[in-house]
Amino acid sequence: MLHDDELRALDAHWRAANYLAAGQIYLMSNPLLTEPLQPEHIKPRLLGHWGTSPGLTLVYTHLNRVIRARGLDALCVWGPGHGGPAVLAGSWLDGSYTETYPDVSRDAAGMERLFRQFSFPGGVPSHVAPETPGSIHEGGELGYSLAHAYGAAFDNPGLLVACVIGDGEAETGPLAASWHANKFLDPVHDGAVLPILHLNGYKISNPTVLSRLPESELDELLRGYGHEPLYVSGDDPAQVHRALADAMDRALGLIGVMQSTAREDGVAERVHWPMIVLRTPKGWTGPAEVDGVPVEGTWRAHQVPLAGVRENPEHLRQLEAWLRSYRPQELFGPDGRPSADVLACVPEGTRRLGATPHANGGLLVRELPLRDLDEFAVPVDKPGASLHEPTRVLGDFLARVMHDTRLRRDFRIVGPDETASNRLQAVFGESGKAWQAAHLPVDEHLDRHGRVLEILSEHLCQGWLEGYLLTGRHGLFSCYEAFVHIVDSMVNQHIKWLRTSRELPWRAPVASLNYLLTSHVWRQDHNGFSHQDPGFVDHVLNKSPEVVRVYLPPDANTLLSVADHALRSRDYVNVIVAGKQPCFDWLSLDQARAHCARGAGIWEWAGTENGGEPDVVLACAGDVPTQEVLAAAQLLRRHLPSLAVRVVNVVDMTRLLPREEHPHGMSDFEYDGLFTADKPVIFAYHGYPWLIHRLAYRRTGHRNLHVRGYKESGTTTTPFDMVVRNDLDRYRLVMDVIDRVPGLAVRAAALRQTMADARTRHEAWIRAHGTDLPEITDWTWTA
Amino acid sequence: MLHDDELRALDAHWRAANYLAAGQIYLMSNPLLTEPLQPEHIKPRLLGHWGTSPGLTLVYTHLNRVIRARGLDALCVWGPGHGGPAVLAGSWLDGSYTETYPDVSRDAAGMERLFRQFSFPGGVPSHVAPETPGSIHEGGELGYSLAHAYGAAFDNPGLLVACVIGDGEAETGPLAASWHANKFLDPVHDGAVLPILHLNGYKISNPTVLSRLPESELDELLRGYGHEPLYVSGDDPAQVHRALADAMDRALGLIGVMQSTAREDGVAERVHWPMIVLRTPKGWTGPAEVDGVPVEGTWRAHQVPLAGVRENPEHLRQLEAWLRSYRPQELFGPDGRPSADVLACVPEGTRRLGATPHANGGLLVRELPLRDLDEFAVPVDKPGASLHEPTRVLGDFLARVMHDTRLRRDFRIVGPDETASNRLQAVFGESGKAWQAAHLPVDEHLDRHGRVLEILSEHLCQGWLEGYLLTGRHGLFSCYEAFVHIVDSMVNQHIKWLRTSRELPWRAPVASLNYLLTSHVWRQDHNGFSHQDPGFVDHVLNKSPEVVRVYLPPDANTLLSVADHALRSRDYVNVIVAGKQPCFDWLSLDQARAHCARGAGIWEWAGTENGGEPDVVLACAGDVPTQEVLAAAQLLRRHLPSLAVRVVNVVDMTRLLPREEHPHGMSDFEYDGLFTADKPVIFAYHGYPWLIHRLAYRRTGHRNLHVRGYKESGTTTTPFDMVVRNDLDRYRLVMDVIDRVPGLAVRAAALRQTMADARTRHEAWIRAHGTDLPEITDWTWTA
Repeated sequence: MLHDDELRALDAHWRAANYLAAGQIYLMSNPLLTEPLQPEHIKPRLLGHWGTSPGLTLVYTHLNRVIRARGLDALCVWGPGHGGPAVLAGSWLDGSYTETYPDVSRDAAGMERLFRQFSFPGGVPSHVAPETPGSIHEGGELGYSLAHAYGAAFDNPGLLVACVIGDGEAETGPLAASWHANKFLDPVHDGAVLPILHLNGYKISNPTVLSRLPESELDELLRGYGHEPLYVSGDDPAQVHRALADAMDRALGLIGVMQSTAREDGVAERVHWPMIVLRTPKGWTGPAEVDGVPVEGTWRAHQVPLAGVRENPEHLRQLEAWLRSYRPQELFGPDGRPSADVLACVPEGTRRLGATPHANGGLLVRELPLRDLDEFAVPVDKPGASLHEPTRVLGDFLARVMHDTRLRRDFRIVGPDETASNRLQAVFGESGKAWQAAHLPVDEHLDRHGRVLEILSEHLCQGWLEGYLLTGRHGLFSCYEAFVHIVDSMVNQHIKWLRTSRELPWRAPVASLNYLLTSHVWRQDHNGFSHQDPGFVDHVLNKSPEVVRVYLPPDANTLLSVADHALRSRDYVNVIVAGKQPCFDWLSLDQARAHCARGAGIWEWAGTENGGEPDVVLACAGDVPTQEVLAAAQLLRRHLPSLAVRVVNVVDMTRLLPREEHPHGMSDFEYDGLFTADKPVIFAYHGYPWLIHRLAYRRTGHRNLHVRGYKESGTTTTPFDMVVRNDLDRYRLVMDVIDRVPGLAVRAAALRQTMADARTRHEAWIRAHGTDLPEITDWTWTA
Repeated sequence: MLHDDELRALDAHWRAANYLAAGQIYLMSNPLLTEPLQPEHIKPRLLGHWGTSPGLTLVYTHLNRVIRARGLDALCVWGPGHGGPAVLAGSWLDGSYTETYPDVSRDAAGMERLFRQFSFPGGVPSHVAPETPGSIHEGGELGYSLAHAYGAAFDNPGLLVACVIGDGEAETGPLAASWHANKFLDPVHDGAVLPILHLNGYKISNPTVLSRLPESELDELLRGYGHEPLYVSGDDPAQVHRALADAMDRALGLIGVMQSTAREDGVAERVHWPMIVLRTPKGWTGPAEVDGVPVEGTWRAHQVPLAGVRENPEHLRQLEAWLRSYRPQELFGPDGRPSADVLACVPEGTRRLGATPHANGGLLVRELPLRDLDEFAVPVDKPGASLHEPTRVLGDFLARVMHDTRLRRDFRIVGPDETASNRLQAVFGESGKAWQAAHLPVDEHLDRHGRVLEILSEHLCQGWLEGYLLTGRHGLFSCYEAFVHIVDSMVNQHIKWLRTSRELPWRAPVASLNYLLTSHVWRQDHNGFSHQDPGFVDHVLNKSPEVVRVYLPPDANTLLSVADHALRSRDYVNVIVAGKQPCFDWLSLDQARAHCARGAGIWEWAGTENGGEPDVVLACAGDVPTQEVLAAAQLLRRHLPSLAVRVVNVVDMTRLLPREEHPHGMSDFEYDGLFTADKPVIFAYHGYPWLIHRLAYRRTGHRNLHVRGYKESGTTTTPFDMVVRNDLDRYRLVMDVIDRVPGLAVRAAALRQTMADARTRHEAWIRAHGTDLPEITDWTWTA
């Protein structure tokens, strides 16, 4: 139970935070209301979300209390991040804001800055954002808060991660799925997540589903999610303060018992973690009615409850009354500094929610202990003499990383039930799959303490990994290429987060988000059209060039080199597309390293230039296109030995961009050196062909660029039939060369017919046998 | 209770279906096992998913029974669609397969075809797909089955929509959110959805979360979702048949009571619909053990349980024993025709799951009653003399459609709580928002029978609308532009569905999926960077050109014309990007119609060509870019009256593509007629600028094309600052003209400086005032 003076102090902090939240939405000056409110004190554009703010300030206040009382290490994920003013208010009050932004001092002048900068051009965003101290979660796009919270808690045994979930957000798919994340949280090695479901009843203009369920049904739902729900409801501040303080104490008590039972008593049972259901009015303490209609406690409080303040004297009067209802003169001294009562609940130093280093993970991140790649590389004496499954080779490397982080526990692999399907199963030798639900004897590799996270939800994989990285750890997301589109929108937001963070000197760089996209378009022949989509690369290449990197390693050693580079990098989103099927080894490790460092280069051994200018360039990016280009080059060497063919392989797609548009971009001089300025270039690309044009359209030789790639001609068929259907096969590439090299059409008419005949033979064979032609399955490279 | 002979017949149907499912995975010939199984009878590539198949066949069998017994109109959505062989088996048995594909006859020859074509090049996909009779749901990408089922049930009062949900799929976000769709199902006007949660325990290589919950916890969860769960568990076929028949009878009894209580007794209470939890072994009736490890009942049964049949005699022996365990000689006559016992449960005609017209919605779809647009158009005597909010104007039109379909009930609007925010609230005058949960007096526009669907889940909006359209109705999805990326992957699959359906003569065209993307990048200044993303257009333009259409109407009347066109169209995905903020009216309705019919055209009234060749082309696509281009044209007219400026507006983005690449593409002759072959073109585009290059790179004049657009420079600021930050503003466009028209750099140096100064003045003003310059906010167009 709260003492009365504790209650008074908590309420003072809450009132101060509410005052500051409302002030940010409305005021340009007169921050302490030292004079009667005038239209000129009001911002010209009234922006912000008041409705959710008083709930967030309430949680901030009460988290302060328990952190201070219990000496907790805590982080809060603010799901209703539209309520930026609330979190900014909490940070300004706990002093972390001023430490981060010294010009926004914790006094009257700083308060005026705090107010003015909010949603003001050149100021701060209206949502919780990278600019917000103590945050790892942008609150603009809803759905990911609880997944982020779990990501932050994994392998952080001393951390409490509170997570406020709005009842609007709770309707989204990713959030609905996130409730089951508690089956993956290890009470021994992970921290605790305390979900706080805030039922304020409304979204923009509708009631919310969860707020309108009968209480018993909601209770069944939350228990069915595996939680022990604690309820706090009301609209009387004193009563709610008492109830929330009780609920938090009870929840933290339960968490402590559960953790010590698992850690000290060694009990290996699934834990039913507590959670809090907080039911308070939307826009609580704001105007009850405006223009004769109810506002407080309704969806009308969602954004700016009094919209006409500058023009409408009655609105202005209501605003002044509202602001003065918090009794600012009790909360702030004449100099604007918060009173002792207001600050009584605020913790010290890095315990403060605005100052926790866990929300600035770059401060905590350590270099991964990565072994020398020589241990894992496949031996390659000559190109194309052997085959390996690239992702299986990578799996051995990742297993070693798993092993070498077994004590540090700062590396995880996430995936939608595909780690083994993607041929990374070597990692299970070092760490099993996290699983707290029931075990059966038939199970394999399930482990209460495992660091591989598998759930059939790309959203959760992405959200968990984001939370894990932003709190200073490392990881990899392995995913079927087609289905990574499921998280398009999440990766957008993560890229935006990184892009903005890079501009904030106080945010230290975090480990990159690394995608391994495999089971890709060319080898989803058995699953068919629905599993064939190479468009994620196009999607990310639209985004901030400072952040995005795309690699298409053509074989096992290049995949190792690229992965090693990605795992060492910071603040990027690295997209690596690589195959899991047997693939020719083209480059030795040393060659692979050099090739990946250049990002694109001539494969002299594959071409027939002999030092002069080539007649044609065969370019490739991706493992299957590389194989087809090399097969085409071999056909040309055999049948047209006098033709000078250059083979160029591109690993780093952004090399194709102009230098001014991407940090990895090539100068025109470099580009022309590779691709020539005037010779035909036949480019076999892994994905949608027009991406290459989009990257290279400014180049001198662009007119001579002819790209083959995936053109949505997908189905259930054989691997070679997939490339034939999309005109990416060796025969078509040879025909393209003949069609495009001046003079060759006549000279090589017979060869062209031979190639066309080979395609026809393929068609007939495949319909009869259902397999690829022996000349394809048995093909080997000869130099 | 089942009679013994009913049981025997049901089991015969189930065994037959299982035999046919396994046969599709393995056999090329010898379909009836009339001779001992030999390696040459086995397919060269063993593909398919056995694990889920016996559960799906079981449901098919028992749905047959209740449909026949009760004369139901039913549709089944097969969530575990990887189990294609099971559904194909059911359709072949009920005769619908042969009616759809006469060459696959219901006899021995047809059975051999059925087997051979499965996952065979040129054959049928391994998943439930458009090719599958009776399906509206591609089972490749998991998560959308239950949303599709609700979409099918809306406004189909006589329909039962069964929906099998795999326990793997149940882990996805979209599925997890879909459970709450029952709060939106009207027992009076909608049909019933019967979810059948199939717990077979495993995904590809892991147990599933729901299958490992304690029974009481699962029960709480499902009751918390608002369902009355009925449980069927076991691995003894007879017992499971009896229990499943009982559960289905009980569920349908409850549904009948609930519907009649609502429909006949007029009781307006939320209904707790029944659902079935079916717990049977994965790969049930398949090999129990292979190579010494358990397979049936484990994840190892997921795909092909015996993988080495062609090479390994023991595997071949096991396969033969497995297939013969179904006793095919009892199930099929020597001619391969199913026995009377097998067919005893099969319903007649269009009652059959494979023959229901609801799964071929084009058979049912009717023309929408669309009024003449004159009723809704805004009067435009001269361009730029008035302002309207385009989406509000559209709202009046949509309200009329709502009104005119009030009895037919075949039109719905879906959106994530944004219908009013997107200014479409006029529709509420004709139909409220569907809502079955509790009502409060403060609520507005909630309606138990409403046809506007609002939930804060883009996934549900998309899934509902897809299900609604594929069963023969019409609709519109209005969404914030940035957040439509949340459904990128869903729209991929819908486009694939339409693309494939168009190639199937028996699938009749369905109404298009229409997106209204508003609250777009240029007017999300108040919400900031997280809400700014125009990339959905890029995403869909990668997909099948037969299906995708993208429109950027520049004002209210063009939006009306485009929307009218979209609502009349079939089998497309129409993406319409339009603003909700006040926008100048440029075109009268007649002009708008003509302009939209052309898709792109010269706005003579805005340029200064005077009949000759222009010196420069100012092109635009999108409402804000159009405004900036017209402002730039006005500046040029005033300051450089001798410069011949042509203004081109593009409404239909695919017009820019070559004619060979898109049905709407322009010939080079047309393109050059608009854009010239050799004059500088400054193109102000709504989205990522490189999209225009990607569309136009083959054009003769491409080298002269200079595109301005969104380049990820987003923040919380003012509308005009957004365009300045992204170099899309009028001043920059004038500078671009000066920089690119030969000889102008010197002649117009002073004007260029004036423009640069205007940008500097903007910078200073906005930092001081937080609003746009008066010269921007007060700007009007003058001809």
